[in-house]
Amino acid sequence: MGIRVAVAGASGYAGGELLRLLAGHPEFDLVAATAHSQAGTHVTAVHPQLAGLDLTLGVTDAAGLSDADLVFLALPHGQSAAVAAQLPPEVKIVDLGADFRLKDGALWGKYYGGEHAGTWTYGLPELPGQRELIKGSTRVANTGCYAATITLALAPLIASGLADPADVVVVASSGTSGAGRSAKVNLLASEVMGDLSPYKVGAHQHVPEIKQATGATALSMTPVLAPMPRGILATVTARFAGDGDPRQVLLDAYAEEPFLHVLPAGQWPHTAATSGSNSCHLQATVDVDSGRIIVVSALDNLGKGASGQAVQCANLMFGLPETMGLSVFGVAP
Amino acid sequence: MGIRVAVAGASGYAGGELLRLLAGHPEFDLVAATAHSQAGTHVTAVHPQLAGLDLTLGVTDAAGLSDADLVFLALPHGQSAAVAAQLPPEVKIVDLGADFRLKDGALWGKYYGGEHAGTWTYGLPELPGQRELIKGSTRVANTGCYAATITLALAPLIASGLADPADVVVVASSGTSGAGRSAKVNLLASEVMGDLSPYKVGAHQHVPEIKQATGATALSMTPVLAPMPRGILATVTARFAGDGDPRQVLLDAYAEEPFLHVLPAGQWPHTAATSGSNSCHLQATVDVDSGRIIVVSALDNLGKGASGQAVQCANLMFGLPETMGLSVFGVAP
Amino acid sequence: MGIRVAVAGASGYAGGELLRLLAGHPEFDLVAATAHSQAGTHVTAVHPQLAGLDLTLGVTDAAGLSDADLVFLALPHGQSAAVAAQLPPEVKIVDLGADFRLKDGALWGKYYGGEHAGTWTYGLPELPGQRELIKGSTRVANTGCYAATITLALAPLIASGLADPADVVVVASSGTSGAGRSAKVNLLASEVMGDLSPYKVGAHQHVPEIKQATGATALSMTPVLAPMPRGILATVTARFAGDGDPRQVLLDAYAEEPFLHVLPAGQWPHTAATSGSNSCHLQATVDVDSGRIIVVSALDNLGKGASGQAVQCANLMFGLPETMGLSVFGVAP
Amino acid sequence: MGIRVAVAGASGYAGGELLRLLAGHPEFDLVAATAHSQAGTHVTAVHPQLAGLDLTLGVTDAAGLSDADLVFLALPHGQSAAVAAQLPPEVKIVDLGADFRLKDGALWGKYYGGEHAGTWTYGLPELPGQRELIKGSTRVANTGCYAATITLALAPLIASGLADPADVVVVASSGTSGAGRSAKVNLLASEVMGDLSPYKVGAHQHVPEIKQATGATALSMTPVLAPMPRGILATVTARFAGDGDPRQVLLDAYAEEPFLHVLPAGQWPHTAATSGSNSCHLQATVDVDSGRIIVVSALDNLGKGASGQAVQCANLMFGLPETMGLSVFGVAP
Repeated sequence: MGIRVAVAGASGYAGGELLRLLAGHPEFDLVAATAHSQAGTHVTAVHPQLAGLDLTLGVTDAAGLSDADLVFLALPHGQSAAVAAQLPPEVKIVDLGADFRLKDGALWGKYYGGEHAGTWTYGLPELPGQRELIKGSTRVANTGCYAATITLALAPLIASGLADPADVVVVASSGTSGAGRSAKVNLLASEVMGDLSPYKVGAHQHVPEIKQATGATALSMTPVLAPMPRGILATVTARFAGDGDPRQVLLDAYAEEPFLHVLPAGQWPHTAATSGSNSCHLQATVDVDSGRIIVVSALDNLGKGASGQAVQCANLMFGLPETMGLSVFGVAP
Repeated sequence: MGIRVAVAGASGYAGGELLRLLAGHPEFDLVAATAHSQAGTHVTAVHPQLAGLDLTLGVTDAAGLSDADLVFLALPHGQSAAVAAQLPPEVKIVDLGADFRLKDGALWGKYYGGEHAGTWTYGLPELPGQRELIKGSTRVANTGCYAATITLALAPLIASGLADPADVVVVASSGTSGAGRSAKVNLLASEVMGDLSPYKVGAHQHVPEIKQATGATALSMTPVLAPMPRGILATVTARFAGDGDPRQVLLDAYAEEPFLHVLPAGQWPHTAATSGSNSCHLQATVDVDSGRIIVVSALDNLGKGASGQAVQCANLMFGLPETMGLSVFGVAP
Repeated sequence: MGIRVAVAGASGYAGGELLRLLAGHPEFDLVAATAHSQAGTHVTAVHPQLAGLDLTLGVTDAAGLSDADLVFLALPHGQSAAVAAQLPPEVKIVDLGADFRLKDGALWGKYYGGEHAGTWTYGLPELPGQRELIKGSTRVANTGCYAATITLALAPLIASGLADPADVVVVASSGTSGAGRSAKVNLLASEVMGDLSPYKVGAHQHVPEIKQATGATALSMTPVLAPMPRGILATVTARFAGDGDPRQVLLDAYAEEPFLHVLPAGQWPHTAATSGSNSCHLQATVDVDSGRIIVVSALDNLGKGASGQAVQCANLMFGLPETMGLSVFGVAP
Repeated sequence: MGIRVAVAGASGYAGGELLRLLAGHPEFDLVAATAHSQAGTHVTAVHPQLAGLDLTLGVTDAAGLSDADLVFLALPHGQSAAVAAQLPPEVKIVDLGADFRLKDGALWGKYYGGEHAGTWTYGLPELPGQRELIKGSTRVANTGCYAATITLALAPLIASGLADPADVVVVASSGTSGAGRSAKVNLLASEVMGDLSPYKVGAHQHVPEIKQATGATALSMTPVLAPMPRGILATVTARFAGDGDPRQVLLDAYAEEPFLHVLPAGQWPHTAATSGSNSCHLQATVDVDSGRIIVVSALDNLGKGASGQAVQCANLMFGLPETMGLSVFGVAP
């Protein structure tokens, strides 16, 4: 008998990816999946890619979730705290929402609105010391998808002194699943295919999360919606403030990491290579002409950017091998 | 120590998918991967999605392959026979090419040109009796991607007498990876995105393979190249010649099949739900107005249409659980 | 001073394409564009591709439209009759909806529901005799997008006796703009990209329209949603019932048509080549093996399939050159 | 009898777009189109979107081009000089290649290799004073596609003192037609769909052209290949060095420009809205948190980024209305 697992908010894209990963996980037994408006529906009507999985979506409440040893919350931002409050303290929780990521309540209010619910252990195992914190936690706040992509690129370079934390410019493009499964005209295939569109320019809610995780003090971020279902490509540039090779810094920082791949010199990350995996691909160089470091990172926003990362954290929380049930390799082309 | 496996023709799309599946297979140990022009190259330079796999591509010859217990041939049509001839009889082989699929040498000559190399056990386990044949074979000819999609939809309906084998019309659309990894102008992204283009109208080389596998005697097939990297959607219609429910026929035929999913009534297959998996989704109805059965099947041309199917056959050939190392669930969205 | 033109239902995709065409038309002066929920909005907030056009959307009522010499109705099915009834008889109308296409009220009820509003002149100038009827009409019912694509492929072949009207099988794939600009989950980019999905299998509402226009008596149609914003590709097969060359029949039928292009033998139509144009590309062959004619036609569902066709009809209704304001050439790649 | 026009290099994407624009131009008569390997081919075999245009591609030499009053050169970089040298001085030439754009021959050598051919009038009419220079020129060097997109965003802000010319960071994504019609594996649809991939990071050949045109002194540029056939989206950030509203600066600079649209505040450019047009959409803001101006510009790389721009220049060179034969409006969705 394995570890009993439930997913709240299973009808969205992150929820569906969680179900896929959990259905193939050797130790986690999926015992419940809940959804708001889709409660009572068979999971394959909502996620046809899971044909063969016999499961009916339940209601998101304490009764439906408390029977689990581990609960993943894949709810809209602002809804996790109420559900978490109903669960017994011994039930371990990974929250894929933003509710418990920020330490600064004022920043929460500014970017998300409403009252700050609190701060949980930040679920990015590859940050220094963070893996041990996650292992000892019963409550983990999973990273934002952009935040994971950018933090993995930036944190070691600021820590090493090579990148000026006060001069960081990011342009990051995301596939559409990052915008969620909500029926909005601007997310229609007709609008998105053949199109690149920036949004929340200079005002994205992941900026304070990235600053908190990397130590950056001034960071300009332009998010762009790209015509592909999955993937984030972040181009992170910072003033070259030190002396050294940024690629070597990444290599040293991530030498032992199973999911982080600093590519051979000259080979740049691209999103399709990470699709369906829990990997993040990285490359860095110094643009001598402009005096800036350029780092590019790519990952699957539903993998290492959300659900894969959440399973990785859960593996740590239960003392399982960190890579269990996750794929290092992308599904391409 | 597991079963030693080699892949010949590892630089193409089917080859890359084989490597991905084998790298995650519990019993198959990937010991060699060969390629023609890319020999000497690290596999991740050719398949960046496999970052983390330490393997250098070798030369496709007997020396590079004979050390294996199992060899997958993912070579251009017409090249398998020469390589197979160099391998000892105790090395088991699954050929993903067309060389050994047809029983009729004249049809081979008509559709592929050149001399017919012979006929191996046809690698579609879900055909009646075929699973046992594959288990007892050391040489298996994997299905064509269109052939698998269409045969799975059509064979039980002809066998049941519901579909008239002399009146079959198929329109099937494929993602671009089905056309291989060759640098041709008509396969450029600029040409394909936003476009649907028919090709080999009434003249596709899978037609004789489908007839052989299903018993169809007259079959019109129009293949269409679709703007997506993976997936085949086949719309198969046949004159309704009998009495009964075609969906029930499919349900009965495939009740025990782990990878074949006849969807709930009213829900139609779509390709994205099968992406990255070894599943095939099916649905059927009778179009009363026109007196025709309409069956739609969807699968991943690199999964159940090629590399996944090949691993499924290999599992059978080695007495392993048929689903080992394969996913029932698609990666979507 | 040109002809005064208004567009009702200007916020949808067909409406936007009408505005684009009318803004460049030498004789039609766009005086009003109306929309339901978007009334009061500047047109460029709804259609950013029209930046440079200074126009505010008005309310769809008699006051807003009666001042025009010509009104295009691009409303949801079932809403045209009420608006048309409020317009003076001397105002010419082209209805892009389905309301007035069918002669048989019972079929209307079966496929669309509700009461049949009546029958107007069918707006497909390339049908024999139809051009003259359109010239003399003040009320024209524009074709459905699938109907136009399939009818242009099929009508001459049935008329010539080459195609058996009782044995027609069609599989037709459409870009997403054909499904309209409504915020539905199944039309989200995340769901559509990388996907082909059939819908309304054997039950599409354009079937009676095609039968009426072509004389087909039994026709199986499977529509498929394709991952591209524009374009329809129809594969039309029919039992080869006569003696002759179907390509030559099309060539003879359309020799003088400016927008219909029967391609050189061996070259098949593809959708991207018609994008943004009012052209339809055609090719035909006999599949000897199956005894069927295969005709493929491609057009832009918003061009010759909707708005371009409507402008073509309007040109005829006002005695203008039929090609005025329309492009024969596609925007590709 | 109009102005006689020839296109050299008509088989590529920019060449095809030139033919489309010229076929609809009221004053330019297309008398010849040449191509290297495709000479002798009917144009519709190479550009199916031009079905209806009766033209056979000729050989690119003086004999084939000298008969024209105006020649567009759409040749690979480095090949224009040899062809131009063969044309009489009274034949006006617009070169879409890079050969004559740079003033500094050393920079030409560094970025393109080979000998510098010279410097022609730079074909960006919206730069201060440039329109008059183009009117008086017989030789014009059309802009690079990235260069046009970025220069239009950046030049007025540097000129106004708001943007620090020594601190510019650009990330710009292009559709695949920008990479040309060459059969390369990395441009295959299978590789590109669902993918974003950076290339020539910090080393793109348009950087010196942008610096020359804008006065920027240090500029970091990361180009990204995006999964769409057309369009460039440039995110241009620069240290906010002055006092004022960057959007107002753009509004003032481009108030009279027919093809440049500074969008309403809060509305950001996206590429699809410019597809098929000669327009460029712009928006700007100050990211207070990071102290940087963010400007986003979007255009069609084959329109305002190449062929449309070339026709605009040619209109000026012949004293025609600048917008003749060009569309302000995009084809969307």
